Amino acid sequence: MSDELLYLDHAAATPLDERVLRVMQPYFSELFFNPSSPYAPALAVRRDYEAAKQTIARAIGAKGDELVMTAGATESINLAFNSVAGHVITANIEHHAVLAAARNHDHTIVDADDKGVVAAAAIKSAIRSDTRLVSIALANNELGTVQPLRDIAAVIHGERDRRRQLGDTTPIYLHTDASQGAGQLDIHVSRLGVDLLTLNAGKVYGPKQVGLLWASNQVILNPQIVGGGQERGIRSGTENVAGVVGFAKAMELADAHRKYEADRLRTLRDDLQQKLEDAFSDAVISGSQKRRLPGHLHISFPGLDAERLVFALEMRGVMVATGSACAANKGTRSHVLTAINLAPEVADGSLRLTLGHLSTKDSIDKAAAIIIEEIRKERQRTQ
Amino acid sequence: MSDELLYLDHAAATPLDERVLRVMQPYFSELFFNPSSPYAPALAVRRDYEAAKQTIARAIGAKGDELVMTAGATESINLAFNSVAGHVITANIEHHAVLAAARNHDHTIVDADDKGVVAAAAIKSAIRSDTRLVSIALANNELGTVQPLRDIAAVIHGERDRRRQLGDTTPIYLHTDASQGAGQLDIHVSRLGVDLLTLNAGKVYGPKQVGLLWASNQVILNPQIVGGGQERGIRSGTENVAGVVGFAKAMELADAHRKYEADRLRTLRDDLQQKLEDAFSDAVISGSQKRRLPGHLHISFPGLDAERLVFALEMRGVMVATGSACAANKGTRSHVLTAINLAPEVADGSLRLTLGHLSTKDSIDKAAAIIIEEIRKERQRTQ
Repeated sequence: MSDELLYLDHAAATPLDERVLRVMQPYFSELFFNPSSPYAPALAVRRDYEAAKQTIARAIGAKGDELVMTAGATESINLAFNSVAGHVITANIEHHAVLAAARNHDHTIVDADDKGVVAAAAIKSAIRSDTRLVSIALANNELGTVQPLRDIAAVIHGERDRRRQLGDTTPIYLHTDASQGAGQLDIHVSRLGVDLLTLNAGKVYGPKQVGLLWASNQVILNPQIVGGGQERGIRSGTENVAGVVGFAKAMELADAHRKYEADRLRTLRDDLQQKLEDAFSDAVISGSQKRRLPGHLHISFPGLDAERLVFALEMRGVMVATGSACAANKGTRSHVLTAINLAPEVADGSLRLTLGHLSTKDSIDKAAAIIIEEIRKERQRTQ
Repeated sequence: MSDELLYLDHAAATPLDERVLRVMQPYFSELFFNPSSPYAPALAVRRDYEAAKQTIARAIGAKGDELVMTAGATESINLAFNSVAGHVITANIEHHAVLAAARNHDHTIVDADDKGVVAAAAIKSAIRSDTRLVSIALANNELGTVQPLRDIAAVIHGERDRRRQLGDTTPIYLHTDASQGAGQLDIHVSRLGVDLLTLNAGKVYGPKQVGLLWASNQVILNPQIVGGGQERGIRSGTENVAGVVGFAKAMELADAHRKYEADRLRTLRDDLQQKLEDAFSDAVISGSQKRRLPGHLHISFPGLDAERLVFALEMRGVMVATGSACAANKGTRSHVLTAINLAPEVADGSLRLTLGHLSTKDSIDKAAAIIIEEIRKERQRTQ
């Protein structure tokens, strides 16, 4: 295997930022106290924890006490769905966590269009008088497609007004999993127009198994893990102080560098895409190219076996994904690619290339050259 | 405040062992990969993760694939209760997480005796034909009382036989939260006779917000967090590789040094108890002194205001608890002390002193002298 690591799978996992690890360290050692203990050093840890929540909240335009810290996006999504009884709506390109949580309810799954976009009109026609929750990810984890959340929010707000005029008090909320958008997109909750928002520290160079659910103060959350009453009684368990302090630092860094990083990644991604399209005229780019995460490229090479290609690339130090990195997904065709009607022979030749902190002009140029070489070899072999 | 930290609250939180942090570090940096990704470095991380689970499993006499890794004991307890539909039994001295989870079911709460022991006979008389789960902690988190789990297990096994003979297939399981026992007691699942067991890394010098639920292969667990299908579909979410690798190291160390450490803590604890009893003839030791965690001392000084004492001690660098460190517990009298019928004026003067890695002969001698001095001052003040 190559000595140099050319990592193009930032959507699956991000390395912990050194600066994040540095702020976490004291909470592993001298500041190990249980934040619920009564003595001063523990109370200081409690204050640091609450301050970290405020920092995270600021990055999304919310308040610290509106956040429920969780063990990651999957738990946050489950908590959001656990808080509603009634009909829910989501889309056929959503993450397995959202689809699985929705299936525990009376649900409608709307179709995304062939560009991987969930139209506000599709949500509108799926809304029933008993719909309680609509859940649409800010950016799709396979295609990188950024959803028209503001338009969807407008539909929800319209429905809310309609109900209010009828004297109907049935609430309807919009939840978004913004995990894939953080660090590249604006995730300010009021600008997005959402009522609930999920984030994952592990996607923004923070620690794994740390996440949050933000809910506006209109939403009543229903605890799914009960006990000592931490997180305002909504999510019990001794707090992950190191993890949350690290998450705060990660969010602070993501927010500070977002515009610069988005531009940087867009340039690198566009360059990578151009090189691959120039080399292979039959390459298929999936997902809306207008509404796409700056660091995301979903590209298919018809007739190619993407799984074989992943192994060939790995031998040369290039790490890429064939689809979503979720465990349940293995060995089956991606439900997202099926949803956008990608032909099987195209879908099976798909790579998801996701750029991030580890991507530089040099590393992307090298990766592009290796990918082109390996695809050519693979095509010669199967001719 | 004193420069020296005399920490006597190991039951609330333990400092991360340096050796544990050391094995975790690579998974924060160069081994940051998502264990579900398809390339070799990610597969190596997957193997390390599974090996860590095997190591943890060995320490409890189980198999790695019988463990479900969670974000801590509270989640594990909730998962255990979420896996049964029907009547459940627990005791009135249990942790809030167990009591709260039990209240979501048809439940019977049996009384512990005045020594804080849950008698197997009390469990036996509470069992109904539709009882599905009995949950009793291995050691109580406030009193340190070690429960007669083997006797309780014998009752459960008896009921199971009785049902089998009647052709009744209703299962009945025994769950224990062994979080407070790990590192001091034998927690081998078959020797305990349990069907489900909860552990918390944060109580054994491992990372916080890392825990597990072990279930025998007879038990069918019902997922409460659904999604990508990790942990055999029982608990979805990208794995906390650093946390689980750290947990494994912590368990390995706990297991290797358990007997030595239990003896060492027992000697220190007995010495501390003797000094306090010698100084205050009216001191009340709660919980069975025969069946008690080696490092645990629950002691009350009638008429004393324990909350004031905690602050006075903290100024001199001595960290102690008044009761359980659970957030919901604040400002109310401990339900455990009420359950064992401790008179209010005794209960309100209670300290929980829990010894552990940070306890040395020197630190315990110093702490004992300071505690005695401060109690005398406090008593003079209120005379």
